[in-house]
Amino acid sequence: MASDSVLLAAVSILSTCQQIFFARQVGKAREKYKITPPAVTGSPAFERVFRAQQNCLEFYPLFLVTFWMAGWFFNQVLAALFGLAYLYARHRYFFGYSESANERLTGFQMSMKVLALLIIQATVGIANNFLDEYMDFNIFKKLFQLF
Amino acid sequence: MASDSVLLAAVSILSTCQQIFFARQVGKAREKYKITPPAVTGSPAFERVFRAQQNCLEFYPLFLVTFWMAGWFFNQVLAALFGLAYLYARHRYFFGYSESANERLTGFQMSMKVLALLIIQATVGIANNFLDEYMDFNIFKKLFQLF
Amino acid sequence: MASDSVLLAAVSILSTCQQIFFARQVGKAREKYKITPPAVTGSPAFERVFRAQQNCLEFYPLFLVTFWMAGWFFNQVLAALFGLAYLYARHRYFFGYSESANERLTGFQMSMKVLALLIIQATVGIANNFLDEYMDFNIFKKLFQLF
Repeated sequence: MASDSVLLAAVSILSTCQQIFFARQVGKAREKYKITPPAVTGSPAFERVFRAQQNCLEFYPLFLVTFWMAGWFFNQVLAALFGLAYLYARHRYFFGYSESANERLTGFQMSMKVLALLIIQATVGIANNFLDEYMDFNIFKKLFQLF
Repeated sequence: MASDSVLLAAVSILSTCQQIFFARQVGKAREKYKITPPAVTGSPAFERVFRAQQNCLEFYPLFLVTFWMAGWFFNQVLAALFGLAYLYARHRYFFGYSESANERLTGFQMSMKVLALLIIQATVGIANNFLDEYMDFNIFKKLFQLF
Repeated sequence: MASDSVLLAAVSILSTCQQIFFARQVGKAREKYKITPPAVTGSPAFERVFRAQQNCLEFYPLFLVTFWMAGWFFNQVLAALFGLAYLYARHRYFFGYSESANERLTGFQMSMKVLALLIIQATVGIANNFLDEYMDFNIFKKLFQLF
């Protein structure tokens, strides 16, 4: 479990810390705009911070799945780099959205592009693995044989 | 990591695409019913689409855990088939709920039954593995010896 | 996949059952306080149960990641014990919050402490594995050699 996953594990723990950081920002916004739990409405500024964190959370399992599948079935180092790019995009999204609803767009689109590229990596890796496993046909090996 | 997980990985990536599809439907409903972010209320039709997506998201980590545990500890092919059934049930739930609150029930109950069966598979698999590992007792082997 | 993960798998399935249990409590609170879907507001008592479940859900992927990383890269038995402690803390949090917003704090702080300790275990384990893998330096082995 170790040697083919240690970079994925490191980026995953980093992403966990980022999510906890976002959750604490919501806690601080609660105090700043005096929104007592369990309320989640009452101030547009608080609602933006809250929705920003909620959106990051919503995509978090999707990111984790595609990230680990890309790392396991395509390439660990590449997936780790895309994972870091995703965390950066989410950072920009969160602080953009906290400023204004429009400023969320740059970070959001960036994070979606990174996610799409991770899905492509995972799909190619899984398809190749599937063909190799069940039909004894390995795309990567065939490609290398051409050169 | 590859040979005992490739079907699980394929269904997982498919489930990620489904979740992204649901999230895009919420975006479209925002435009259709003119609900500007960060608001999530204001139109019952939008709220139904939003709650449908939220519910799918809430159960998504639960599905992933039971699905992978069932696949790793019980049987990969069986878990993959149940995984596809779960995605179908969630599809029906989402579009049912988008129509009316009552029509969400069929898909929801179907998805809960599939989830329960995955939990049972995972529990049996883990229990057997635990007995085998720590008490040198394998239920499946004993069962096969009876015949 | 089996022998180094069976305890992690068992605690994961248990945590899934806990999340389903929380979701059912929200369903019961919906009936009790007559909050018809898709509404999620209207009664402070219902909102507390709902927010309690939402918070448990929000932290669930974070828990799963740190729990598995701690178990894979540090120590499976220790991670399993901390996992059980986390489930207990979340149980106290959920029923505390259902009573009053103030009573959520004890369980919440307990769960955050357990999560922080799991993150530390995971980080130490990953760092040691990384040094061992890429720099041929194993902290644990060095420590044992001192005695």
